[in-house]
Amino acid sequence: MDPNASGLAQRLAEADQSHLLQFWSELSPAEQAELTLELQGMDFKEINGFFKNAMETSSSSKQEKMDTRMEPVPREVLGSVTRDRECLKDWELAGLQCISQSKVAVLLLAGGQGTRLGVSYPKGMYDVGLPSHKTLFQIQAERILKLQQLAEQKHKTKCCVPWYIMTSGRTMQSTKDYFSQHNYFGLDKNSVVFFQQGMLPAMDYKGKIILESKGKLSMAPDGNGGLYRALGNQGIIDDMERRGVEFIHVYCVDNILVKVADPAFVGFCVQKGADCGAKVVEKTNPTEAVGVVCKVDGRYQVVEYSEITLATAEKRSADGRLMFNAGNVANHFFSFSFLRDIVQKHEPQLQHHVAQKKIPHVDAKGQLIKPDKPNGIKMEKFVFDIFQFAKTFVVYEVLREDEFSPLKNADSQDGKDTPTTARHALMSLHHRWVLNAGGHFIDENGRRVPAIPSLKDGTDLPIKCEISPVVSYGGEGLEELVKGREFHPTLMIDENGVHELVKNGV
Amino acid sequence: MDPNASGLAQRLAEADQSHLLQFWSELSPAEQAELTLELQGMDFKEINGFFKNAMETSSSSKQEKMDTRMEPVPREVLGSVTRDRECLKDWELAGLQCISQSKVAVLLLAGGQGTRLGVSYPKGMYDVGLPSHKTLFQIQAERILKLQQLAEQKHKTKCCVPWYIMTSGRTMQSTKDYFSQHNYFGLDKNSVVFFQQGMLPAMDYKGKIILESKGKLSMAPDGNGGLYRALGNQGIIDDMERRGVEFIHVYCVDNILVKVADPAFVGFCVQKGADCGAKVVEKTNPTEAVGVVCKVDGRYQVVEYSEITLATAEKRSADGRLMFNAGNVANHFFSFSFLRDIVQKHEPQLQHHVAQKKIPHVDAKGQLIKPDKPNGIKMEKFVFDIFQFAKTFVVYEVLREDEFSPLKNADSQDGKDTPTTARHALMSLHHRWVLNAGGHFIDENGRRVPAIPSLKDGTDLPIKCEISPVVSYGGEGLEELVKGREFHPTLMIDENGVHELVKNGV
Repeated sequence: MDPNASGLAQRLAEADQSHLLQFWSELSPAEQAELTLELQGMDFKEINGFFKNAMETSSSSKQEKMDTRMEPVPREVLGSVTRDRECLKDWELAGLQCISQSKVAVLLLAGGQGTRLGVSYPKGMYDVGLPSHKTLFQIQAERILKLQQLAEQKHKTKCCVPWYIMTSGRTMQSTKDYFSQHNYFGLDKNSVVFFQQGMLPAMDYKGKIILESKGKLSMAPDGNGGLYRALGNQGIIDDMERRGVEFIHVYCVDNILVKVADPAFVGFCVQKGADCGAKVVEKTNPTEAVGVVCKVDGRYQVVEYSEITLATAEKRSADGRLMFNAGNVANHFFSFSFLRDIVQKHEPQLQHHVAQKKIPHVDAKGQLIKPDKPNGIKMEKFVFDIFQFAKTFVVYEVLREDEFSPLKNADSQDGKDTPTTARHALMSLHHRWVLNAGGHFIDENGRRVPAIPSLKDGTDLPIKCEISPVVSYGGEGLEELVKGREFHPTLMIDENGVHELVKNGV
Repeated sequence: MDPNASGLAQRLAEADQSHLLQFWSELSPAEQAELTLELQGMDFKEINGFFKNAMETSSSSKQEKMDTRMEPVPREVLGSVTRDRECLKDWELAGLQCISQSKVAVLLLAGGQGTRLGVSYPKGMYDVGLPSHKTLFQIQAERILKLQQLAEQKHKTKCCVPWYIMTSGRTMQSTKDYFSQHNYFGLDKNSVVFFQQGMLPAMDYKGKIILESKGKLSMAPDGNGGLYRALGNQGIIDDMERRGVEFIHVYCVDNILVKVADPAFVGFCVQKGADCGAKVVEKTNPTEAVGVVCKVDGRYQVVEYSEITLATAEKRSADGRLMFNAGNVANHFFSFSFLRDIVQKHEPQLQHHVAQKKIPHVDAKGQLIKPDKPNGIKMEKFVFDIFQFAKTFVVYEVLREDEFSPLKNADSQDGKDTPTTARHALMSLHHRWVLNAGGHFIDENGRRVPAIPSLKDGTDLPIKCEISPVVSYGGEGLEELVKGREFHPTLMIDENGVHELVKNGV
């Protein structure tokens, strides 16, 4: 349909985006139809408003001001697995009770693609090379399964932990297909709910939407904070209400150690009467590239590492720890009523953040240009942008080596957050579980291997050991399987029992 | 000379080492002479005694017993750069005064070869790829130079920090040549004193000395604790006394960040009246492969990571920190009188430690065998074995990112302690010095670079910045050079001033 006749050209002109039609006459009828469809679905006034606000926020010299406004997390809102050990058992029991009453849901942020990882499919489908070759999705699914089982055993009632999975336009179908092909890894398919975050166009620095080809806009997911809009417009909040969900654990797909619906974290937040909580790990090096949870002007937020001056990053408390040491690991707790208020009331107040990017685009002649420095922006909301609305905010500190090992880069890159580091982190954790349950590992000469492996020569890798989540969620229940026994690695403990995998064979 | 006639065969037979002559008749006269010379210099009774004691110590099940005997470092003997900030300046001034009085010497342990690093020359001659291409030796030499200068400026007297460099038989000549060729990097050559640690033969599990070829014993340096014997038998203790040295800072060559003769460390130890002190960094992950300084049966020692059970490694204090968190970084302080007592009285009491190794050897037919699992032992003493004799022992805790980045493995290996990590650690430290002195870095578009660099995509490496030790020992004196200025990396600050190195040119 002619864009002039349909009024589309008029709408674009009013929004100063007429350049999107500059190649109209060169497009095939099919391409014209597709472009028309895409443009008709867009609210240009809203997008231009997003751009204006986002650019204003980002250009104000935040950094200089931020330092004097930041305050650390006070001790009284902090729960810590190392400093409050006497409370851990209580919190865990409280959380497990909520789970047994089917009040707890988990919400997975899985909209990103594995671009940095070098794959074109969703990151959750990545196999980091564990002995079992399980993917991140499978590991997480099995942890949910096990947790339901633990809660049911403890409280003698059936229960369900619904799993909400946010994908993006690009990952929706492949994610759904993958779960379906694997029969939802044993979970009730009705309790695995997929939904889709929105997309926004990339824009140049003047606010013009960028064309990635003559008939196609450059679109990207609207950030993990796109969650809140999607929860509303796709009926997820209503679904939660129908199921009686009261507490939600939100996390990102890329952390192989994630304790999905972690009962201790949930129990801590519930006992504290929190509407919002963040799980953190201690930041120990001032220049570590991690955002920190803190107060700014009295309200909680995550301050990104790029916003902090070195002087602030290096500040220390009297106990010698970094003052701003609550490292964000994208593991959050929300009460249902808080989340509903966010979705229904506060979402429109959230500002988009600006990410400067190198965005491939067509020039005035229709030639594809791949820029070598940033030429435009993507606009994103962040999942933690809503901390500011919390009435009772709490922070829960856990051990990095037990709970946080994200998968971000390919092995070919610089060695940080790779499939290898993720695999090693999981096997090291499971190795420690076996030792703490009274098991031992022996080497090829029958000698016991020290608890802390040597890394001399770079040849002695972590003990190969993998325990299926179906057997143990967090290290529990292993004594009867390993106590007093000696194992040759590779050790596998799964639904079929305890096996040693011999090299080049079974 | 016929070994029977000379009595050598008789001595070997008495020591149960006659197999060392099994290929005698196949050797050329020159080889026979060389073997004779080597064997005549050896005290087989002593070596057999070492073997017996070392094996007995290592086979007793130390690990089980160790856990209950370990106690952490008490707060009152600990000085910490993060927890005692108000004392730092005082300690530094006290140390600088000692230096200005020429009472402080440094002692470098450089007997190891760069085997794991994949080079055949001494590790100190390694160039990690800094913009200046300085070697570890040069960096350390320049730090000593600068420190002398700082002490002289402060106290208006000439002073000297003698530098004792322990090499091994294998690295002595190349080390000496290297210093001579580079004119001792500006140091007074009379104050750079080389000496040589001893060697011991490798032995099989039955105590037989291993032949690496028909006419040659498998020999290795006797560990960095060989220091104490060498200090005595090569007259170094006497040399120290002659020079009036009262305090000695001992360190290993491989740490690119080492603060040679660190005035704050020296000042802290002196003010505490310590005869022996250890610099440590906080161990934060229970399974990190680092030895910890602690008390065992009331005496200080370093417990190696391989000796600790996981339960002990995971123990925490009430403040949440690991209980055994004083990670040894091989940086020690000794008073001269303590060191002299060690050398003159206690050295013989030090036990050798056993390191199981794959040792190439000739079999009964004279064929060279390269074993693929350990077939024998090397015997080593450790530099920290003497902590037990200290009357006043102190511990000084510093920040890892400021002071400890050892060079151990080649870049081709697993990414830990490589030339790349060493180079990045140094440039990151110097980047922070510039920021803290009020300088800024800007990118190719003229925008200020955030203080904490992003590591996304593995492409954004640390800001390239190198400051010559001749300009600044520990970050001091930079304000006048950088305050309020903006720099494009690579930034170089050296005796010729402040430069920006442009890519592909000067």
